[in-house]
Amino acid sequence: MIYLENIIQAGDYVLIVYGDRGRWLVQVKEGETFHTNKGFIQFDSIIGKPNGTSVLSSKENTFQIFAPTPADFLQKTIRKTQIVYPKDASFILIQTGIGPGSRVVEAGAGSGGLTSVLAYYVRPTGKIYSYEVNEQFYKKAQKTLARAQLGTFVEFKNQDISEGINEKNVDSVVLDLPQPWDIIPEAEKALKCGGTFASLSPTIIQVQNTVEKLREHEFGDVNTYELLLRPWKISIHKGTFVATRPKTQMIGHSGFLTFARKLCK
Amino acid sequence: MIYLENIIQAGDYVLIVYGDRGRWLVQVKEGETFHTNKGFIQFDSIIGKPNGTSVLSSKENTFQIFAPTPADFLQKTIRKTQIVYPKDASFILIQTGIGPGSRVVEAGAGSGGLTSVLAYYVRPTGKIYSYEVNEQFYKKAQKTLARAQLGTFVEFKNQDISEGINEKNVDSVVLDLPQPWDIIPEAEKALKCGGTFASLSPTIIQVQNTVEKLREHEFGDVNTYELLLRPWKISIHKGTFVATRPKTQMIGHSGFLTFARKLCK
Amino acid sequence: MIYLENIIQAGDYVLIVYGDRGRWLVQVKEGETFHTNKGFIQFDSIIGKPNGTSVLSSKENTFQIFAPTPADFLQKTIRKTQIVYPKDASFILIQTGIGPGSRVVEAGAGSGGLTSVLAYYVRPTGKIYSYEVNEQFYKKAQKTLARAQLGTFVEFKNQDISEGINEKNVDSVVLDLPQPWDIIPEAEKALKCGGTFASLSPTIIQVQNTVEKLREHEFGDVNTYELLLRPWKISIHKGTFVATRPKTQMIGHSGFLTFARKLCK
Amino acid sequence: MIYLENIIQAGDYVLIVYGDRGRWLVQVKEGETFHTNKGFIQFDSIIGKPNGTSVLSSKENTFQIFAPTPADFLQKTIRKTQIVYPKDASFILIQTGIGPGSRVVEAGAGSGGLTSVLAYYVRPTGKIYSYEVNEQFYKKAQKTLARAQLGTFVEFKNQDISEGINEKNVDSVVLDLPQPWDIIPEAEKALKCGGTFASLSPTIIQVQNTVEKLREHEFGDVNTYELLLRPWKISIHKGTFVATRPKTQMIGHSGFLTFARKLCK
Repeated sequence: MIYLENIIQAGDYVLIVYGDRGRWLVQVKEGETFHTNKGFIQFDSIIGKPNGTSVLSSKENTFQIFAPTPADFLQKTIRKTQIVYPKDASFILIQTGIGPGSRVVEAGAGSGGLTSVLAYYVRPTGKIYSYEVNEQFYKKAQKTLARAQLGTFVEFKNQDISEGINEKNVDSVVLDLPQPWDIIPEAEKALKCGGTFASLSPTIIQVQNTVEKLREHEFGDVNTYELLLRPWKISIHKGTFVATRPKTQMIGHSGFLTFARKLCK
Repeated sequence: MIYLENIIQAGDYVLIVYGDRGRWLVQVKEGETFHTNKGFIQFDSIIGKPNGTSVLSSKENTFQIFAPTPADFLQKTIRKTQIVYPKDASFILIQTGIGPGSRVVEAGAGSGGLTSVLAYYVRPTGKIYSYEVNEQFYKKAQKTLARAQLGTFVEFKNQDISEGINEKNVDSVVLDLPQPWDIIPEAEKALKCGGTFASLSPTIIQVQNTVEKLREHEFGDVNTYELLLRPWKISIHKGTFVATRPKTQMIGHSGFLTFARKLCK
Repeated sequence: MIYLENIIQAGDYVLIVYGDRGRWLVQVKEGETFHTNKGFIQFDSIIGKPNGTSVLSSKENTFQIFAPTPADFLQKTIRKTQIVYPKDASFILIQTGIGPGSRVVEAGAGSGGLTSVLAYYVRPTGKIYSYEVNEQFYKKAQKTLARAQLGTFVEFKNQDISEGINEKNVDSVVLDLPQPWDIIPEAEKALKCGGTFASLSPTIIQVQNTVEKLREHEFGDVNTYELLLRPWKISIHKGTFVATRPKTQMIGHSGFLTFARKLCK
Repeated sequence: MIYLENIIQAGDYVLIVYGDRGRWLVQVKEGETFHTNKGFIQFDSIIGKPNGTSVLSSKENTFQIFAPTPADFLQKTIRKTQIVYPKDASFILIQTGIGPGSRVVEAGAGSGGLTSVLAYYVRPTGKIYSYEVNEQFYKKAQKTLARAQLGTFVEFKNQDISEGINEKNVDSVVLDLPQPWDIIPEAEKALKCGGTFASLSPTIIQVQNTVEKLREHEFGDVNTYELLLRPWKISIHKGTFVATRPKTQMIGHSGFLTFARKLCK
């Protein structure tokens, strides 16, 4: 996600934008071509151009080429049913205080989407310890982080986190697991005093179980939220008709976010 | 917001939590006392204790003491009508890619709430150039950043940003101004190619004007969103009665967020 | 809620509106006075005036006097924690098909708010059979209906509905009870084939239990919804500053609505 | 929408439900067949059966047959981009007080969806005066009302409402027009004192113009709202895994609703 020179080079991942809906995250490959139904673009024509370049496709349509932000990366590299959305990933950051220098335990990595965002924000001195029991996801997540050029900030573990967390005194624990409540005793041991806990769950019964377990253990300041993102369509003036309005389609639910902090004496 | 030793010391700002609703951000002062209607706490009794300590007040109520996260800091240091909410501040981060090492122009600083969050995330090598024309706010924002121990990451300017931005080639421009559209030509000059733009406005006509101006200038990938945060009450099991439900009160609106990126040839 | 002559008379209930926030539902009493901190109004000055009259208070503030709609009646006659909101009451109407001529079983009447709305819409040939086990509420609900001049469309029963529903072949059953699932076998017996069922519950576990019970019994087309009402502030043009925006405060939750229909062979 | 005998007859419109997603509103025709990819149903097999009947398709799938409620009718008879949703139609009812006996002016009828709902609720003594300038829609709306067996409660007018409203002293005016503000002087003349006004618009600038015009004319108690309907998925218990959660997809916007009442001296 980082262009030191702000110039597009072979091997970079770029976000290609067309109109309101076309968004692709692709790797720039010398001599190769990017195809859409609006025409093709030769990668060689954008290599050496700055971030923010506009190019014409073979069908004379304008495409814009950008360095991906963490939000682009999250929404576009990953094709699984339950991706972590940018709104949720960023709210986890600000609520837990995960930032430059933080040491964070995460499970499960899944395809590595949330891992990438966490890694991006703990740079340059922090570390993500990422547990993923499923070997296929474990490998996929490593690829995702390599793609984002953030692999050095993550230590991947193909382990079942319920069998124990190796790290001690970490700043935060972030869980995206089917049964997060099972990990709470381990999270308690791994966290420093006052350390922050976040869990992301799609269903309300998971939240119920997680919150009950947090209260049984030494956690305080337990709060649950959900975030609704509403995209708007902003129109250009045409006399009195300005069609500015919320967009018709909207994601009605991604997941519930539960936060807590470890208590100490 | 950063405790190197994770031990509460005199001069630190701490978050004090009582039950579901009591939340205060206060400075720990030797020999002094913190008063609430649930009893008082002597600061001396928490100095030297770890982050995450529980203490009993004089009325035997339990209060929890934590190092503030950026979200606590944002919601609790500032008492003006239109604070920037954590949900919005964090969504700006992930959409713009503002992170460790970013160079960011911000206006207006206001009380310094959003400035603190940006400063926290660009550590240790980035910088916030923060414009605030109002002298009173300019001074207030500096105090807020000093309080957050983040002053070294911000260069404050008591200048009207509409008269020009001194910096060039910055990664991002973030505006929280009544007339953001006036700044767009300046923002365009200050941004690097592909650099990201974010603007926060409470009203829809401000958004309308901003988006129209962005389209007239060399900006692409223009998108507007609003975020709704819904807090939930999660109850402990009592037979079949588990009163888990969204909370009755909710903030219905904070502001609209508009994002764009600078195009280059 | 019905003015045959559209002229305000002594004994009528009127909605008094002042500015954006002042709303009172009061009975017009000859010789008496209505007091607010914006001045008082003598009821005699509005008797004989049409619905929609504006009057000046003793402090020269303008108040508007209207015949109450069902929405006004619902929000303003009743002072309990969990009133049924107009958005929910009206969605129950359209989803169940309760309308002119419908025969409906309702429990519990509570203060009679939802009962009033149902009664208003089943006129002139329908009937509400309203069960309320709590004697105090049973009496309160009768008063509310008398006030709305809708008492003739309701048969009140100071009975525990879980002990049985006397009516057969009703069009709809509407429940606002702590344990609606207990009533489902009785609701099934009382409903005509294809008859509609609605239940309103504040918590998600109540919904869970209700839906599971509906599926065990002969109900089909089971659906659960929640409705969020977002009030907007629309401002008058003042140059480029038009402060149009959603209002800051919003009710984040009232209740979940579950609908179903009785299956028959 | 009304079955006097609650028995399905040839010519009736029925709602056919399959699982969570299959919903069709079709006319029962003797000797004909209803086809889906889950098998076909012979209409003759349901004629004479009660409302609420379950039938097996040729592929042994269970379909449920119901008399349509107004909500079904609204969502299922009409295939245009901007239908009026049940949540909005019903909120108009309760806020305006349109009910049994009301005399209502409506424009534009469009395909007749909202007209049907209004007609259903003003039975048996009320009347809808429905203006539709477009001849194609004027004819379509009449067909829709005939289908709903509600034609006798509506007087259709193939007229441009901006050229004048023929009726006087009506209880309510309901507008679903691109430029509702143009009709406000006419609406004012047609309404009785204290009569209610409702307007439905997809964009915020339409609302802005409408509210400004209402304030210039003799209207009071002007309020604008939007309603968000959130469907939930309620799951059956399977150990600790109960997948109860809001559904992923949701309509993010249908329209803004503006209400007002006519003032008189």
